[in-house]
Amino acid sequence: MSVHSTEVRLAARPHGWPTAETFEINRAEVAAPAPGQLLVRNLLMSVDPYMRSRMDDRESYVPPFKVGEALQGGAVGEVVESTVDGFKPGDTVLHGLGWREYALVDARSAAKVDPSVAPHAAYLSVLGMTGLTAYAGLLRTAEFKPGDVVFVSSAAGAVGQVVGQLAKHKGAAKVIGSAGSAAKVAFLKDLGFDEAFDYHDGPVRDQLKRAAPDGIDVYFDNVGGEQLEAAIAAMNVHGRITVCGMISVYNATEPTPAPRNLAQLIGKRITMRGMLVSDHGDLREAFVRDVAPLVADGSLRHHETVFEGLDRAPEAFLAMMRGEGHGKILVKIA
Amino acid sequence: MSVHSTEVRLAARPHGWPTAETFEINRAEVAAPAPGQLLVRNLLMSVDPYMRSRMDDRESYVPPFKVGEALQGGAVGEVVESTVDGFKPGDTVLHGLGWREYALVDARSAAKVDPSVAPHAAYLSVLGMTGLTAYAGLLRTAEFKPGDVVFVSSAAGAVGQVVGQLAKHKGAAKVIGSAGSAAKVAFLKDLGFDEAFDYHDGPVRDQLKRAAPDGIDVYFDNVGGEQLEAAIAAMNVHGRITVCGMISVYNATEPTPAPRNLAQLIGKRITMRGMLVSDHGDLREAFVRDVAPLVADGSLRHHETVFEGLDRAPEAFLAMMRGEGHGKILVKIA
Repeated sequence: MSVHSTEVRLAARPHGWPTAETFEINRAEVAAPAPGQLLVRNLLMSVDPYMRSRMDDRESYVPPFKVGEALQGGAVGEVVESTVDGFKPGDTVLHGLGWREYALVDARSAAKVDPSVAPHAAYLSVLGMTGLTAYAGLLRTAEFKPGDVVFVSSAAGAVGQVVGQLAKHKGAAKVIGSAGSAAKVAFLKDLGFDEAFDYHDGPVRDQLKRAAPDGIDVYFDNVGGEQLEAAIAAMNVHGRITVCGMISVYNATEPTPAPRNLAQLIGKRITMRGMLVSDHGDLREAFVRDVAPLVADGSLRHHETVFEGLDRAPEAFLAMMRGEGHGKILVKIA
Repeated sequence: MSVHSTEVRLAARPHGWPTAETFEINRAEVAAPAPGQLLVRNLLMSVDPYMRSRMDDRESYVPPFKVGEALQGGAVGEVVESTVDGFKPGDTVLHGLGWREYALVDARSAAKVDPSVAPHAAYLSVLGMTGLTAYAGLLRTAEFKPGDVVFVSSAAGAVGQVVGQLAKHKGAAKVIGSAGSAAKVAFLKDLGFDEAFDYHDGPVRDQLKRAAPDGIDVYFDNVGGEQLEAAIAAMNVHGRITVCGMISVYNATEPTPAPRNLAQLIGKRITMRGMLVSDHGDLREAFVRDVAPLVADGSLRHHETVFEGLDRAPEAFLAMMRGEGHGKILVKIA
């Protein structure tokens, strides 16, 4: 069967911050699934920082979104019609075609998930790409080891909340988080972070020094800019930096100069390494084995902020980019 | 016996570029060696970029030089008097107390070298700390592998000339060097670099793109600043950067903002790693075994620029910092 579906399209490429003009909401007709395809009714979708880079018309590690076409991103939905053995109507699947009510999904790009094991939201956050990003970025990219002092920026965000708790769980000597409000600082303390501060409360360099007078060994960077510079200044010899995101520069219209103390990489023998979760699929099994029980027994907590309704997806995306909301930001489609 | 010795002292800490006022040349009396010490008559000494950081009164990986005291650095000399078994007058030793005619050297900090195997200069350059820096920085820090395209800045300098030739010898697909004059570019071509350019001849980013249209896999950074930014822009996915030096910022009086494209570390999954040769002493044996035969048979060439006379040591140091001279810069003391 074909269905009528509402979808959110890229109306125009943003210059700097996306605005209301960036998005348009339209109706489309979705055809019956061809062989190898599933027709999926989306229930919940994710908004993520990487989507901002796909809005630019620039060669990148993923192709840019096309103007006039529906946006894409992680979603959980229910199979309505299947042409593929192993998938049947009623199955719950995780796939990459969010931002729309109904999706025609290539079955090879869909993974069945079990909603009786964990809620839909968990598959888009702590047990999904977000959680694997935290896991690989901390344990592999930053080569975390017990006894390390760990600093995470955007710590109340989707990835940050997992990094901090995972570091504590794995034996960090101290975990420090920065965030953008007093409420988030309280949230981080509640999650078990040893120290947390609001980066609006004074120079990050000074606040980090107070939180970690003996320096830090690992910095998990979600932000770039001033926070990266402060982390380099606080870094101990042989420290490691995972560069997972630089949300401070994604909407910049000019190249952003930072950090000014990069020469300290030499004397401190710092390793700074960019990461994309797509390189770390081989860790997924170990990740689920390791983290799913912690989620199940509540020792690794996860918070989601859910916007209700597909028409609020642009608003949810902008809130995520501005650092509003705690934890992972999701949109409930149905 | 005690001897009269001329020495070069730090007269005043420089603010920005060192000047004539930074140095003073004085006579001192050097006492007879105490037990465990050698009295050494210096023959040849090295000037190196790291000495600039030791002129600042700032906590660093090595303690700062003291105002009013003789400077220090790599030197080759002849033992005049020894209190230590295993060292006798006439032995040639490599040690860390240059910038003076006579040195009282702790025997534990001296290494005997054989001038019949290689000339004195080689022990301060290609077979010494300089060569080991190139070796460890390329093979270990940058995880060089055959087929890599390698870019080296300050390529006609002491470390750069070794990095480029070593990379060719180890199977690089292409080696590109940047330097500061047409004469140096010719020197690099003569050494076997595939491509070389003068960074004064246009934006580094454009020149590097022409030299490496398919991108680079390894960047050996001796400079920082614009060259680092250009290297990040040209870098292929999973590229590696060894941060060995940032001579462009050592004399800066304000923090220098650079590079502006650091967020590319994420999408390209670049690893950027600071290094100090002092961490890589365990490679020394392999390095000598590997490189000494190449030096002996002339397949790895090394060029030194020698200033005659200890009184010219400040001039030699400034010439090195300004990038004058080819290859390693040394001062002949006697």
